[in-house]
Amino acid sequence: MDVFGKPHRTIYYAEASACVEIIDQTKLPHQFDIVRLKTVADFCAAIKHMQVRGAPLVGITAAYGMAVGLMVDDSPESEQHLYQVLMETRPTAVNLRWALDRVRDHISNIKPGDRGQKALAFCHQLADEDVAVCKSIASNGAALLGQLSQNKKGEVLNILTHCNAGWLATVDWGTALAPIYKAHSEGIALHVWVDETRPRNQGSLTVWELSQQGIDHTLIADNAGGLLMQQGRVDCCLVGSDRTTAAGDVCNKVGTYLKALAAKQHNVPFYVALPGSTVDWTLVNGQDIPIEERSGDELLYIEGWSESHGCLETVRLGVEGGATHNPAFDITPGELVTGLITEHGIYKANKSSLEELKAITNQSSE
Amino acid sequence: MDVFGKPHRTIYYAEASACVEIIDQTKLPHQFDIVRLKTVADFCAAIKHMQVRGAPLVGITAAYGMAVGLMVDDSPESEQHLYQVLMETRPTAVNLRWALDRVRDHISNIKPGDRGQKALAFCHQLADEDVAVCKSIASNGAALLGQLSQNKKGEVLNILTHCNAGWLATVDWGTALAPIYKAHSEGIALHVWVDETRPRNQGSLTVWELSQQGIDHTLIADNAGGLLMQQGRVDCCLVGSDRTTAAGDVCNKVGTYLKALAAKQHNVPFYVALPGSTVDWTLVNGQDIPIEERSGDELLYIEGWSESHGCLETVRLGVEGGATHNPAFDITPGELVTGLITEHGIYKANKSSLEELKAITNQSSE
Repeated sequence: MDVFGKPHRTIYYAEASACVEIIDQTKLPHQFDIVRLKTVADFCAAIKHMQVRGAPLVGITAAYGMAVGLMVDDSPESEQHLYQVLMETRPTAVNLRWALDRVRDHISNIKPGDRGQKALAFCHQLADEDVAVCKSIASNGAALLGQLSQNKKGEVLNILTHCNAGWLATVDWGTALAPIYKAHSEGIALHVWVDETRPRNQGSLTVWELSQQGIDHTLIADNAGGLLMQQGRVDCCLVGSDRTTAAGDVCNKVGTYLKALAAKQHNVPFYVALPGSTVDWTLVNGQDIPIEERSGDELLYIEGWSESHGCLETVRLGVEGGATHNPAFDITPGELVTGLITEHGIYKANKSSLEELKAITNQSSE
Repeated sequence: MDVFGKPHRTIYYAEASACVEIIDQTKLPHQFDIVRLKTVADFCAAIKHMQVRGAPLVGITAAYGMAVGLMVDDSPESEQHLYQVLMETRPTAVNLRWALDRVRDHISNIKPGDRGQKALAFCHQLADEDVAVCKSIASNGAALLGQLSQNKKGEVLNILTHCNAGWLATVDWGTALAPIYKAHSEGIALHVWVDETRPRNQGSLTVWELSQQGIDHTLIADNAGGLLMQQGRVDCCLVGSDRTTAAGDVCNKVGTYLKALAAKQHNVPFYVALPGSTVDWTLVNGQDIPIEERSGDELLYIEGWSESHGCLETVRLGVEGGATHNPAFDITPGELVTGLITEHGIYKANKSSLEELKAITNQSSE
């Protein structure tokens, strides 16, 4: 997608610096900073501190981290160590495991000494694959938005989204925002309600993305969505997923579940856009997904732009040292989900429908 | 309630300064500042900018504002003007009208020249009445919490609250927090999940209050309550109300409705604590309550304590000049409310049950 009018990806290998480069998403929307990741420790820190975030991008970043590590030492011990430290950076997103497994499988028959370079080349392929997957999600989702728009007979279609599942959460295009970009490019009139998404305010990433692409949007507090649905001002909810079970339970950014309950109450369609790789076929019940608990400092402190000092500054919001609880995700049961928009088409959020996706996914990865 | 161990009210007439004094709640939890309100403009600004907030306290503050205005000019024209400007400060809370009407009724038969002083004396009485009402809510609610605690067989009772309906929202004691204070003083083991309550973060007022009284609590993002209920970690929700209809629909801080939906889904009792004066007997349907729309700057900017500069500082969170929508309240339909805790007892949130409250309210105000 465009940044200041020029196409950009969230992660790429820069030949000039011989480094993987990322956009530092903790500085957005205030500063557009590119950061070079040189060591495995850099990759781990970038994931943990959410300079990169979003299930697909976390996966690709971890894969690159493994490749960079293998270029230094591609012994089986090193491979095992790299797999483990990268795996531990964030516990909820299943793409992390998926991406690391893909790299490991790819190099399993390659002779030592050559594995790092081959892994790196494979990561470029994984990144391109991610873009292709997101483009397919865009097409499938845009067709759906087109139908919803027709029901509104030309009136603007109001879509509510939570967190950021835009191109910043992937290599490019995004998941939940991809259909919006595509539909917009096809001339469908739409407007996006953007949840602020406390405590990390990823809503401002979504606002930044939508502004860059010229798409009409409005920032709201996470608390406002219920009222908007009561007032009939939301035509559809569209969010991403960090992990989806084989029965269609969706683990996504904390607060998603509250919106899904409100959507159900007001007959607002609730769609989840996700790459097939975020489905965890080993799990059925969403309650079995481990929920990452993050530092309470995310609630007590916030960084923003200080006009008076002309720089980013951190201020304390709450009582110093106060008790906090900060789970990063919640579970939306499949019965609250109208449909799962994937690269292979739209599926119902239940076991039998997802069996079809599983069959296709297995086929396409063979 | 106690501030640094000494009893304090949110508003009082200080003989020494011959002024009404308030706690500036926009500075909490960082600074405990007392502000003197001298002119009607001071009173209007304090209400509008939420130095005082919470339906009961807004009512008492407006009443004092009217008295102070009448002391300068107690002509019928002045009275009408004062009523109007104070009424316009905030549109949703019904206590504002109720309190202004009480002052107007009180002075209706008093001769000009004497009305300001009489109105002021009456405000002291209104303030004491508010405290008495909150104490009754405390007793009625504590009995209920005692029952819920017994069901838990001695385990800690986990209560989730949204916004601040503590003593800072009233003259003293509070509404939703009053039963918690009372139950705590009776030795009932409890813990409070405190919603941050974006965009104005009144959760930090609740945290500050609970810390001052030594009650166990944990700050959470507004997004987290759904997950906590899924996990069975909430035994009861307890919130306040800015306006309640004759059929029991509750207008309260935006986001309340989302918690009520989750509570319903997980069979968590959802209680609302309110003085009878917050019931608007002229309205049946909650959707008819005007919802105050506040400045989007509340979403885009936030004030916090800057450790590096040792002062309160405002930082910008979002994209400058970005589109925002910031409704301050939402409506929780009566069918999602388990009970209304009032000074006269606990009522069902429906028309027939509230008819009983109406009968008692009319009686007691005669």
